[in-house]
Amino acid sequence: MSMSFFALMTTIISLKAQTRNEGPWWPNKLWGAIDQAGGSNWITPEKIVKALSLVKTGKVFELGHQYERGMPMSGQRSYNIFIPSFPTHGPTGNDKVVFNDEYVTGEIGQVGTQFDGPGHVGKQITMADGTTANVFYNGVNEDEMRNPYGLQKLGVENVKPIITRGILIDLAAYKGVNTIPENYEITLADIRNAFAKQGMKESDIEPGDALLFNLGWWRIWPDKKIVQARTPYPGKEVIDWIISIKPSMVGSDAILDTGPEYLLHKEAILKNGIFNLEFMNFESMVSEKQQYKFLFLFTPLRLKGATGSPGRPLAIY
Amino acid sequence: MSMSFFALMTTIISLKAQTRNEGPWWPNKLWGAIDQAGGSNWITPEKIVKALSLVKTGKVFELGHQYERGMPMSGQRSYNIFIPSFPTHGPTGNDKVVFNDEYVTGEIGQVGTQFDGPGHVGKQITMADGTTANVFYNGVNEDEMRNPYGLQKLGVENVKPIITRGILIDLAAYKGVNTIPENYEITLADIRNAFAKQGMKESDIEPGDALLFNLGWWRIWPDKKIVQARTPYPGKEVIDWIISIKPSMVGSDAILDTGPEYLLHKEAILKNGIFNLEFMNFESMVSEKQQYKFLFLFTPLRLKGATGSPGRPLAIY
Amino acid sequence: MSMSFFALMTTIISLKAQTRNEGPWWPNKLWGAIDQAGGSNWITPEKIVKALSLVKTGKVFELGHQYERGMPMSGQRSYNIFIPSFPTHGPTGNDKVVFNDEYVTGEIGQVGTQFDGPGHVGKQITMADGTTANVFYNGVNEDEMRNPYGLQKLGVENVKPIITRGILIDLAAYKGVNTIPENYEITLADIRNAFAKQGMKESDIEPGDALLFNLGWWRIWPDKKIVQARTPYPGKEVIDWIISIKPSMVGSDAILDTGPEYLLHKEAILKNGIFNLEFMNFESMVSEKQQYKFLFLFTPLRLKGATGSPGRPLAIY
Amino acid sequence: MSMSFFALMTTIISLKAQTRNEGPWWPNKLWGAIDQAGGSNWITPEKIVKALSLVKTGKVFELGHQYERGMPMSGQRSYNIFIPSFPTHGPTGNDKVVFNDEYVTGEIGQVGTQFDGPGHVGKQITMADGTTANVFYNGVNEDEMRNPYGLQKLGVENVKPIITRGILIDLAAYKGVNTIPENYEITLADIRNAFAKQGMKESDIEPGDALLFNLGWWRIWPDKKIVQARTPYPGKEVIDWIISIKPSMVGSDAILDTGPEYLLHKEAILKNGIFNLEFMNFESMVSEKQQYKFLFLFTPLRLKGATGSPGRPLAIY
Repeated sequence: MSMSFFALMTTIISLKAQTRNEGPWWPNKLWGAIDQAGGSNWITPEKIVKALSLVKTGKVFELGHQYERGMPMSGQRSYNIFIPSFPTHGPTGNDKVVFNDEYVTGEIGQVGTQFDGPGHVGKQITMADGTTANVFYNGVNEDEMRNPYGLQKLGVENVKPIITRGILIDLAAYKGVNTIPENYEITLADIRNAFAKQGMKESDIEPGDALLFNLGWWRIWPDKKIVQARTPYPGKEVIDWIISIKPSMVGSDAILDTGPEYLLHKEAILKNGIFNLEFMNFESMVSEKQQYKFLFLFTPLRLKGATGSPGRPLAIY
Repeated sequence: MSMSFFALMTTIISLKAQTRNEGPWWPNKLWGAIDQAGGSNWITPEKIVKALSLVKTGKVFELGHQYERGMPMSGQRSYNIFIPSFPTHGPTGNDKVVFNDEYVTGEIGQVGTQFDGPGHVGKQITMADGTTANVFYNGVNEDEMRNPYGLQKLGVENVKPIITRGILIDLAAYKGVNTIPENYEITLADIRNAFAKQGMKESDIEPGDALLFNLGWWRIWPDKKIVQARTPYPGKEVIDWIISIKPSMVGSDAILDTGPEYLLHKEAILKNGIFNLEFMNFESMVSEKQQYKFLFLFTPLRLKGATGSPGRPLAIY
Repeated sequence: MSMSFFALMTTIISLKAQTRNEGPWWPNKLWGAIDQAGGSNWITPEKIVKALSLVKTGKVFELGHQYERGMPMSGQRSYNIFIPSFPTHGPTGNDKVVFNDEYVTGEIGQVGTQFDGPGHVGKQITMADGTTANVFYNGVNEDEMRNPYGLQKLGVENVKPIITRGILIDLAAYKGVNTIPENYEITLADIRNAFAKQGMKESDIEPGDALLFNLGWWRIWPDKKIVQARTPYPGKEVIDWIISIKPSMVGSDAILDTGPEYLLHKEAILKNGIFNLEFMNFESMVSEKQQYKFLFLFTPLRLKGATGSPGRPLAIY
Repeated sequence: MSMSFFALMTTIISLKAQTRNEGPWWPNKLWGAIDQAGGSNWITPEKIVKALSLVKTGKVFELGHQYERGMPMSGQRSYNIFIPSFPTHGPTGNDKVVFNDEYVTGEIGQVGTQFDGPGHVGKQITMADGTTANVFYNGVNEDEMRNPYGLQKLGVENVKPIITRGILIDLAAYKGVNTIPENYEITLADIRNAFAKQGMKESDIEPGDALLFNLGWWRIWPDKKIVQARTPYPGKEVIDWIISIKPSMVGSDAILDTGPEYLLHKEAILKNGIFNLEFMNFESMVSEKQQYKFLFLFTPLRLKGATGSPGRPLAIY
């Protein structure tokens, strides 16, 4: 039989499946039909206890950038901060106390070190009834989510605090470069070789770990090239591997995805709820005697109805 | 000698002292002349290791509110969130991927569950040279800080991640009420009695712990009364005690301060760098078999030049 | 024949008509298929010359409110203004020059005295091909307009400056009240009687005039009731009359529309491009010896892709 | 006697004068001690009638740019516009009406075609009592104006609508160039020669006219060079002449000022209340048979407490 017959059959099957209740990536096989928390569900009390046990010295490493005016941003996103007057309030009382506020405007969950939550990425598909719909994680569609003042479903407030084992995969070190070049497709062999160089085995990774990839692009920051270049990206094989590993989330010092097809966004975030922390900063780690397994902390802000979150990722070991 | 003589002497002494280099609350006795991190300096690797050791089960408690439109805010502060179009981007590529962003405007570090950082509160004083200046933590003055686009010194990015022992002082439980009434001045006796009821001794507290006060006002949230009423506040005696205890920070489910003199803001934050987390939420804790000592996590966002930070405070035990 | 047969026929007819090229309200009969300026097209050089000729004394009347924090706004709209630091810039140069900026956030074309432009109101309809579409003035649909960063078609920048004859219809004066009560449906008889009281004839109105209705609700401003109450509204008969009169625009001191069906928005703005200036202020006029025909000026800001505009409407006579 | 003696005397005299009530540029000699409207006071009913009489054909010329994302802005100023969701509201009612809003953030009175109002520019000076103060138009000082949420005095809402005679001084045409080069200091001879070329006499100008200078820089827009280059600027002699002419305001297609001393801002705006409309667009005028005297309309938005205003300047003749 010809390929086109298979293609046709696939289309028919997928059309049959694409109702609100059932579709190619929903209900989520791991977390069930009403889940909005994705990979963060791996963060159980037991997982936390295990992650904390990795800490020996208590040394803290900052794995994010500061948020500041002028940092690199994609497209037309923006970030502004103001001090309204100075001082903003006062002097007040006998003791002439004064206060300052800041006023911030911006795509706060989608600038700087940013965590893509469950409402960030979707796909326009044709449903079984012939209608076209934008469908997101776990089959949630536009009609359930759309609101001018914050998503009504799949807001980032649904994601649980990430307190887990962080696994650093230092691809730049394996490649022996400061910064992996543009347009580089990361292979599964690269990952396996990096593990070998790090004295680790693939089987050291456990479900719910956070997989963090050092591409050396934190060295570029805050050069705008980091949001304009085609930064290194995992190929399909690597993304399938990531999904098979069942991490709570992934992260890197770039976006871990590029190109027209947004493989990682589509396969990991959208279809599997494996959320992605972009534009991390590994400077503090790589300047030390390196550890590759550590306590990883990232607590997304509970901004109701937001698509992502800023934050302050930390490694402790 | 009369009191007025002492008062005069004090004035003379303080006038003498009030130069950039030396004044009534600077250089900071604990952390030195150039410090901008205050009580967060207590969070050493050793302290972290000790705090982590409190975790037995790994159960996580959310100690903050979600950030949302319409939440109570002081004065003219505001918080807005938008989804620009829906989807914001796409469909793009063969697979018709779509993306959403959120756009947020607001006094982001001074609304909702909010952490007052080192640049939030100051005092207008007369310097030795006769000039008037707004002076902040560690003697930093307006000229060093003032910038329309974010504080140049004492921004909240200077505060280290708070990973420490949390000590809950459940004043509402001690008083046997859901919510401590308005206008109530918290006494040192209240605190000691609360410890006794909790089976704790004052000496259980160690430098660098986070002192968290349950006033029962999280039950009011999101009623605007919580920002309009004179919520329970510690008197001078309690504030002196707090300072003597040397916590990394304090927190409560209200502001732990009110009235024209802003005692806590002035004595704890401004003069001692003991920062204050306001409008916490103890709902998840008090609905469980209570613990009073636990791992406490709060990672202020590194918003460069901001006066405060939103966040997601957690207890784990 | 039964009603349902007629209903069916109507549906069939309207379905036939509803393509991009032809539908119930497009192409616009007065201005043609590609028009985006609606009633402002009446403002020709000749019309301007005629309008200017009404000016005898040169006295100016402000017909709008100031824009300020706390003014009444519908729903979740907001308006904030800040002075970033003070001064925002400087001192700079030998002469120590300083500068202030303001930073404004808000639904700037949909708060306060506001002009609803061509992209503000649409209707969800079923097209001939069975698809559902949001269609706006002159048949422009969502696909042509939608962009997160400003409308791609029907932005308010397409509206020409309104320099025309203003016709005041003082309904409050006719009714002998300060403020016409809530829930009042304005009738055509009211309008004719008001004209009679004003010593005017309906035939005094010419195409392209701006029809301004005094309902006495400017007296309520800035009470929030003005955006919460069902302010006086024209019934179908009046709206049909307005459309037949061919004004460049309408205006009033409320919204001139309320209730679930938004008759004026739908019939005048959406279908006929007769734009609507809401929340005007007639205080300066009614405190003078009244004129009812005058030079009317309103220059919508050319905010590219905006749905409306703030402004400073003026009467001169 | 030596110059330094005179300088000393000047200093002494000016120090004596610099109280709130009296200083080098206040009370304003033309408009008195409490004035906040500056040159817009020239716009009397008589002036308006005279200006309207210039209109013969009613043809309208747009003299401003559209406001849009990406337009050139000075320093860290910004301008963003969003459509929250699409549609923002609805469908609502039986007829499924939908609505769009726009959300705008930016230094709205200091971006694009912008009118500098009375609170925009000041000077830091030493007062007679030895204190340092930022003083603005008519001697208003920081203490009277400063408020985080909008200026308490000298807000742009105090400026009257500009409905006056516009006088175009086409310096680019006189120079025979499309665009006058960078760093060019405009001389009084240039202005007189331009008048001669235009068939005008200096005495054609009357108090309260708006003086508009075509430098040819509108041709550069939206190239960011227009805010980065040292655009042509009037020297001291020209500024003195402008002040002597007593215009209601000045305008140009650049900022009509540059360099460290901000002569025009300081002498014309600050000291004389002759406000300045920056970044105008003369494209529509110069493509026609040119007129140099016309009705000029500019109605600053009454944004309470703002330092400037966007707008839609028009010429009609």
